[in-house]
Amino acid sequence: MTGTRERIMETTAELFRRQGYQGTGLKQISRESSATFGSLYHFFPGGKEQLGVEVVRCSGRGFQDLGIAIFGAASDVIAATRELFSGAAEVLRGTSYADACPIATVALEVASTSEPLREATAEVFDSWISALCSVFERVGIPVATSRALALQALSALEGAFVLCRARRSTDALDAAAELMVQAVRAALQDTGGSG
Amino acid sequence: MTGTRERIMETTAELFRRQGYQGTGLKQISRESSATFGSLYHFFPGGKEQLGVEVVRCSGRGFQDLGIAIFGAASDVIAATRELFSGAAEVLRGTSYADACPIATVALEVASTSEPLREATAEVFDSWISALCSVFERVGIPVATSRALALQALSALEGAFVLCRARRSTDALDAAAELMVQAVRAALQDTGGSG
Repeated sequence: MTGTRERIMETTAELFRRQGYQGTGLKQISRESSATFGSLYHFFPGGKEQLGVEVVRCSGRGFQDLGIAIFGAASDVIAATRELFSGAAEVLRGTSYADACPIATVALEVASTSEPLREATAEVFDSWISALCSVFERVGIPVATSRALALQALSALEGAFVLCRARRSTDALDAAAELMVQAVRAALQDTGGSG
Repeated sequence: MTGTRERIMETTAELFRRQGYQGTGLKQISRESSATFGSLYHFFPGGKEQLGVEVVRCSGRGFQDLGIAIFGAASDVIAATRELFSGAAEVLRGTSYADACPIATVALEVASTSEPLREATAEVFDSWISALCSVFERVGIPVATSRALALQALSALEGAFVLCRARRSTDALDAAAELMVQAVRAALQDTGGSG
């Protein structure tokens, strides 16, 4: 049985993904998670901003685990790179283009308006960049190139999400996948490895 | 002298960029543009959603003109590609990371909640993709590759904006610039052109 706190977090994460931080009110969170205002403030005394920070951190860890699983299961780093984008495309198509990154919408909304929330999104992105960087380093790509590849892959993925959700097409994710596969392949060739 | 309608549009565009669509209320728009509620509804009888659609379309045209100017002024398509990203990085640093794409925040917020606004953001992105595609075709890159490059460049740019604003660093834009310069160079070499 899921506890009230977990139910509030999951409901909020889902609402942030679909309608963003500003568009999500505590009233809707309370209703859709079947939690009273009393328990919302019991678990999150700092209100919506504190809840937002915790949801961003928790979703960030969840997606990082998913990414690590993808790279762990794939036969090589090129296949994993392709899978990262094609898996995202499949989820988008399966959810009427609603379910993309749980962090990006909030990140853009709060970057200039809430320092605690901006910091939480920055920490998540930093953590994803480190995790991706490690994946590339592990197959022998030098650290500076690995870091650039991590920044490039995450930029391509997040930007493709914006285009895909707005245009209701996954062509941007397909094109971004090709771009990153070529970039990873080139880095591996420079290194003399095969991934 | 700027007319009231233009002042409302400019103020709204600026507020969308900094705090998104949901975080921007008609009250704040009225106050910051020194326009009464009466004139807001006179010019935009459909209220905030209609104003949003017109601001998205107008900002879209403005940024497309800026992009066309960058590609028109640069010595070649590789230099222009680099300039697209470095110019954006300069603006971000000069505005405390507030002033990135005027469309992306709104696009992510409304994709699942307002069909008229989603369509407006989709039309802007489609138009940018066509304009970028033409730039690459003009230097002899085949249409399918040009279209892929346009999708890739726009994804890389939009995604880098997300990372840069959240992390208050332009390293993602620098890395995205290198990625796209390499991709455009490779496409030109395949074509046998020099850009």
